[in-house]
Order: sequence, then C-alpha cells, then structure tokens
Amino acid sequence: MSASLPTDLARQLGDDVVYNDAEVLDAHRHDYWVLAHLDDLEGRGAPRPLCVVRPRTVDHVVACVNACRNAGVAIVPAGLRSGVCGGVEAHPERVLLDLSSLDRTRGIDSHNLLGAFDAGKRGIDAEREVEARGLTIGHWPQSIAVSSVGGWVATRASGQFSTANGNIEDIVHTIEAVLADGSTITAGKAPRAAAGPDLRHLLLGSEGTLGIITGVTLALRRKAEAQDYSAYTVPNLTTGFEFQRELVQSGWTPPVMRQYDAVEAQRSFAAHAKPDAGILILVHEGPATRVAAEVTATDALARRCGLGGVDTRAVTDWLDHRNTVPHWRAFLDKRIVVDTAEISASWDRIGAIYDAVIASLNEVPEILNASAHSSHVYRTGLNLYFSFAVRPRDAAEMRVRYLDCWRRIVMATADHGGSIAHHHGIGRLRRDYLELDLGATGVEALRAVKRALDPNDLFNPGVLIPAAAGHPADA
Amino acid sequence: MSASLPTDLARQLGDDVVYNDAEVLDAHRHDYWVLAHLDDLEGRGAPRPLCVVRPRTVDHVVACVNACRNAGVAIVPAGLRSGVCGGVEAHPERVLLDLSSLDRTRGIDSHNLLGAFDAGKRGIDAEREVEARGLTIGHWPQSIAVSSVGGWVATRASGQFSTANGNIEDIVHTIEAVLADGSTITAGKAPRAAAGPDLRHLLLGSEGTLGIITGVTLALRRKAEAQDYSAYTVPNLTTGFEFQRELVQSGWTPPVMRQYDAVEAQRSFAAHAKPDAGILILVHEGPATRVAAEVTATDALARRCGLGGVDTRAVTDWLDHRNTVPHWRAFLDKRIVVDTAEISASWDRIGAIYDAVIASLNEVPEILNASAHSSHVYRTGLNLYFSFAVRPRDAAEMRVRYLDCWRRIVMATADHGGSIAHHHGIGRLRRDYLELDLGATGVEALRAVKRALDPNDLFNPGVLIPAAAGHPADA
Repeated sequence: MSASLPTDLARQLGDDVVYNDAEVLDAHRHDYWVLAHLDDLEGRGAPRPLCVVRPRTVDHVVACVNACRNAGVAIVPAGLRSGVCGGVEAHPERVLLDLSSLDRTRGIDSHNLLGAFDAGKRGIDAEREVEARGLTIGHWPQSIAVSSVGGWVATRASGQFSTANGNIEDIVHTIEAVLADGSTITAGKAPRAAAGPDLRHLLLGSEGTLGIITGVTLALRRKAEAQDYSAYTVPNLTTGFEFQRELVQSGWTPPVMRQYDAVEAQRSFAAHAKPDAGILILVHEGPATRVAAEVTATDALARRCGLGGVDTRAVTDWLDHRNTVPHWRAFLDKRIVVDTAEISASWDRIGAIYDAVIASLNEVPEILNASAHSSHVYRTGLNLYFSFAVRPRDAAEMRVRYLDCWRRIVMATADHGGSIAHHHGIGRLRRDYLELDLGATGVEALRAVKRALDPNDLFNPGVLIPAAAGHPADA
Repeated sequence: MSASLPTDLARQLGDDVVYNDAEVLDAHRHDYWVLAHLDDLEGRGAPRPLCVVRPRTVDHVVACVNACRNAGVAIVPAGLRSGVCGGVEAHPERVLLDLSSLDRTRGIDSHNLLGAFDAGKRGIDAEREVEARGLTIGHWPQSIAVSSVGGWVATRASGQFSTANGNIEDIVHTIEAVLADGSTITAGKAPRAAAGPDLRHLLLGSEGTLGIITGVTLALRRKAEAQDYSAYTVPNLTTGFEFQRELVQSGWTPPVMRQYDAVEAQRSFAAHAKPDAGILILVHEGPATRVAAEVTATDALARRCGLGGVDTRAVTDWLDHRNTVPHWRAFLDKRIVVDTAEISASWDRIGAIYDAVIASLNEVPEILNASAHSSHVYRTGLNLYFSFAVRPRDAAEMRVRYLDCWRRIVMATADHGGSIAHHHGIGRLRRDYLELDLGATGVEALRAVKRALDPNDLFNPGVLIPAAAGHPADA
C-alpha cells in the first residue's frame, strides 16, 4: 500500500509539498534526542522516512491524513524537531509530516490579548511579532529559537518565566488539530468554560499520538511595566528550598526563580559564586510598585534565611545567555555523552530526590558530572533539572551508560514519590517508565483514549504510550 | 437483572449502605435544578431510584460499580446535589450512588500545602478544617455550604476568588476515581508533569459520566497576610469593562472583581448604589505591601476611568451574604420561575452579548427581571452571570417560559462567539446545546472518549453528552 503513496500524495498536493530527495529525507530522520545523534555517529542512525510531506495549509494536513489512513500508512508528525526525548523518529514505511512550513501568523489581538498562529510557527518569531505590539507570550523555553508553538503544546512545554506566567497549558487558549478520521477539532473558545472535560487536554502532551496540531491561539500579556532582579549565594540546597517555599507560599510570584547547586553555580556563575555554595537568581516583573514591594520582601526573607547577596549581574548574565541550546555533537565527538533530565516533586520530597539521584549517578563508572538546578516553582513543590555527563573508556559503552543514567534518575525520582517528567515529555526515552507516573490504570485509560481517537494507530506509533503486555513495543 | 440488585447489594455492602425506604429514595430524586423543583410542584417530579447506595469507603464504590456493571444497571452518581443543571436525576431502573457519607479528611499537609479529602466532603467543612491550620482552599463557590469537593471537580466549578486563585482545575492536585471497569485511577501526583495528556481533565467537568470521583487533593494557600477592599459606581457597563480589562491586563490580580449592572446594583446594593448606575466591588488579598500597592493602583485607574467612590461597606456587606443560596420554592410558590445563567466571552464580545441577551429576555412575555453581573475576570475576557424571573399569567406556562429564557441566553451568547457555560456545567439543561461550544467534532471526540472509558453507558446516562443523530435522547 505504501509504495505508491508518495507519488499519489505528490499528485494530490504538489511537488513543493511532498519530498523524496535524499537530502530532505536525511535531514528529517529524528529530533534533538541525544541518543539519535549518538546513533548517527555510530552508524546505526534512524532510517529515512517513506517521504516528507511539508503542508502549508490545514487542508494539506487533512488530505495527507486521509490519504495515509486510506493507504494504511502511519504518520510521524514533526514541528521543528527540537524535542529531546525521541518523539520524532522516521521509519521507512511512514510519512514524516513536517509542519515547519505551516507557519503563518493568523492574527494578533491586542484588545483581548490573543495571538493565533499556525502550529509550525517558530517560537521566537511569534514572540518578536507580539513584542512589536508591546505584548509578550511570556513563554520562554530554552528552545524558543528552535521550537514551534505547536510543539510547545504537543509536549506540554514549560518556559523560564513559569512561576508567574504558568506553563503552556496555562497560556494556550485554543488548539486546532486534525484527528485521525480527517475531521478538524477546535478546542477552547472562550476565557473559561464548564462544558464537559476540557478537550484541549487531549492534545496537550499528546506528542502527536492523538491528533496533528495545526493551529494554536495563545493568551498574551502586556509587556511588564517594570523588571528587577535579585541574586543570592545559598549555603546548601535545603536552605535554598526553604527560601523558595517561603517566598511562593507567602504569595509572591517572581516569574523566574532558579536555584543552582554548588557544582552548577561554579560552572555557570563563576564570576559570582562562592566555593561550595549554590546560587539563587530571581527575576521580578509586573507593575512597578508591585515589583518594588516584591524585591523588598525577597531581600528581607533572604536575610532571615541567611543567604548572601550577589551582584545582580549574575541575573542579567543569565538572561543574556539563557537560550543557548547545547550542541550534543561537540560532546559526542569527544566521546562524552551528556543529557538533562527534569522531574518534579513536593517540597518534602525534593531534597531526598536530589540526594538519591546524585548519589546514584555518581555510582556510574566514568561519570564526569552529576548536578542539578531548580527552575520552576509551585506552591506545592518544584522541579529539578539534572545534568549528567559520562565519558566511558570504551566508547562503545556510551549508549549503555546513557540509558543507565536515565534509569537511575527515573527510578530514584519515582521511589521518592516524584513525577518522572516535568516538561520535556515522554517520547521514546521515558515511554516504558510511564506507568511510574500514571499508574497501571492511568496508562490503560490513555490506551483506551488512543484506541478511541486513533483506532488504526495512524499517528506517531511507538511514542508516549507503552505497549500493552503481550504486544511487541514499536521501534 | 435490576430487580434483585438492591437485595444483592445490601447483602454485599450492608443495610447501612443500601437504602430502599421511600423517604430516602424521595429525598435523592434530583439535584437543585429549578426545573426539577417545578416538576415536583406540578406533580410530575422525577421518579424514585431503584435504590440509594451510600458508600463510606472507596471499596464500597468499587463493589457497587462492579455489581451494577454485572447486572447491567446504570449508576447516577450524586455528591450533595447542589448542581443547578439537572446533572442528577433518578431513574427507577438505576442506582443512585450518594457520595455524601464518603466524607473523611484524608490529610492536611501544611508544608506542601495539600489537603486530601474524600469526594463527598462538604466544601465548607473542608475549608474550616484547613483554616484551623492558618490555610485556605481559596475556592469559594456560592454553594460552598451545600456542595462537595468532588462535586466541584465533577462540574468544573468556579469560586468567588477566582481572578487570583483560579478555578477548580487550577486548584485540584490529584483526583481519585473509580472507572467503569471497576479499576481505580489516581491522576495527578506532582506539582506539574509532562507525562502525556493530563488525565485529571478526563474527570474535571465529566459530571459523573466517565468515572466516579472518590477522592480529591487540593493545592491550598496560606491565609493572606492582608485583605482590603475597593468599591465604585460605574456609569455604564462599557466603562466598567474597560476598567476591569485595564486592571487585569496591567498585571494586577484582585481575587474578587464583580461588576453589577444598574438593575442588580439597585437590588443588591441599595444602600450604596446611585440611580441608573452600576456598581463594582473588589477584594484585594496577599502580602500587605502588595495589597497596598494594588489598592493605590486600583484607585488611580478608577479615577482615570471616571468611576465614583463607594463606601467599602458595599464589599463587606457582600462578603457577609455571599453564600446565600436562593430558595427556588419561595419563588415557585408565587408562580415565579427564576434562574441564573453563566456564560463567558472575550472582552470585545461581552458587551454585545449582554445587550443581545437582555434585549431577547425582555421580549419574553411576562418577564419580571433580566439583569447580569460579571464575577470572574481573565486577561482575555470575563464571564457574565445573567438572572431572569418570569411570572406567567397562566401558571402552566412556567416550564415553557423557563426553557425559552434559557434558549435565548444560550443562542445570543453563541451567536456572538461566547461560551455557553462558564461554571455550572451542562447537565441535562444545556446538553443539547453542547455542540455550540465544542463543535460537532468536539462532541464526537467526547462521545468517543465516553465509549472508550464507559462502553456500556454505566455512568450517568443522559447527562452532558447529547445523543448522536438517529439515537433517542436518554431522559
């Protein structure tokens, strides 16, 4: 069935939508998962897709979905492929649906604070257009220059200003998607509704498995009247967590509040950090009088907690460099495998998770680095963002060591009651651990929803949802 | 199959869990929908259920679900039956599952700000227990004295302090529910996760159709350090809306911001209102210095917008009386049928919706009142809460007039792009209008999810989900 599909699609959609040349096929084989890069380097990289379809309209997407369904050919949807968990991986019998050219701005509404975009719109481009009107999306993933607004929704992304602005589920107003039967759903029409379950949440975090997201309307903000900064040294993580907990539970909402352990403080804030101490940086935003009140309250609390003052250039330095995305290849070429892993937990569990994960990572042979910072704070808890680096003497061990590090992080987090995925999603990397978060009943409910909306497994097979017992896992 | 079920259930669960006496059956026939009360008055009230099952443990719920599924008998789940849209209506062949005795406090955690309750816990009781520890749930539906925490989740409730504290979906941390196959799901385990679609949203707003909610963990707040008030007269709604929009879009978040039209201002704030003018009341809460900054900014904006000052006793009077629930029977006995209808829309549409709804209601013969206030404000728009009262000369016309008023409110709202349900849910009242909010594809997706999770229509048939074309609507 699949052999003639590229030709049929090209006839229907045009040669400028359907691509079969090796260069395009090669370039779209995977996302930014470090393991995909390692596999490339080791000569066992992901195969080329059957073809690449690059729609420029929602009608193109509908036509592609219908043609693929009729041909029994699965679709791997892809935004800008900045995901880091293997949510995009090509397959020779599947169409790679590249949404990067579905990238119009549909409208920016300064009165209602709404910005409507095609799903493939690059995040930073959307933000710049909105900023030209004195507004902001307020969503700043590190990947903003290389990720799409549709990808933010598909993966349940977080931004660096989340402590005040919320995560993508708090920012998205409307989601448009094409379902497996070729119908188009538009979920979310008003500021708030109580009209049954919120259908946006079928798509938020679905990682391309339940629908092809084609359009996203975001609730914008006016650019803040004032911005100010605070920075402190922290004698130890426990003291820092108590400061963070006290500040947010008292009702203050600095959009940025990041605590780095001593290792990362030395590495990322060398000019400001004290030996063996962590560092904590905050950005305050909002009406000027509120920002002034927050800075005063923050400083008073910091003194009570015994934190030490740091030049706020630590914060502005971070602001200037915060969207730099690591180049895996620079490490891999040196036979070092690195990654980051984000988890979340309640306040009373986060310290134990930190200790358990770091201790476990340090048992990995030839580990070069095991460290963490927290970057998303809630009144009930916060995230931790672990970094690890390993350089095995035997380079052939890189893959095994990498997966071992991940297993250690996931298991130690789950053992202590945390969630194994804060904001990068599940993809293939964490798929077989999903039950640790959702429980067996939750995974089964997700499978039931998948069967209901995509009975033929048309959309992104092998991602997110673990295979049921007795069924082989898809690659 | 159903005849022996009450006896079987009583044998299994005990006589103190399964009730068959007329008094209990009569008392559980319906929720607080005004039409159910009218039907009672007119002698065609809802029938008695097959039996009332009053579980005190989650195991009781599981046993009841399994027994009913095996017997092919549907379940009508009920919390404290304060819903106003007909979400609970007994049926002689269905079990009424009364969750009011599943009402333990499972734990209150002041460190992580989490309060865990059985689903049947009365809202005000949960709030008082939390307050005794210096905390608050911060969720204040008008019904707090007569509604349950599980009901809040099942209906996607809003509270009066929502503009800062969010609605129930922003407050709920974990939802435990029994699914139709008898399995128990626990959705939501950490402050935030990106582990697939957020399964809590299968239950939030599901109105008993997708699972029986048995437990709810809420994210609490510390009691605010300071509370202050503002109150103004408003020359017209447009000016008031502009003030509200400017205040929230500037980044201020008073938890309460309520604007009443001139009719309601005269009725509810007689001591403070000016003739032909509306009234706007605000509550500010939070750290003292932030509250002071917010009050100053609010007052300055009010002056710029030409609002007039009002004694803040208007606010404290409202705070003292805000949880009074109207007694339908007091009106119905006078042959007056009354109700409220809450909708939401973006800022640029709300004025047109107000005008269209009020004009349309005023065309209804023998209308006594058509008025509105707004009570939940977002940066992209706000809600309107319409009130109407009709006294037909021919009392037999009350039902027809009631449904006509509702039709007018829903259609005028949808015609102008608003959502037809802000926070009371859908029930039976708005079921056949649901497509106006979700679209045909959205309703079909909801039906698919229902079939996936509850293939035998075991849970609350006839509620929320409209019958598919060609299928008879369930009563």
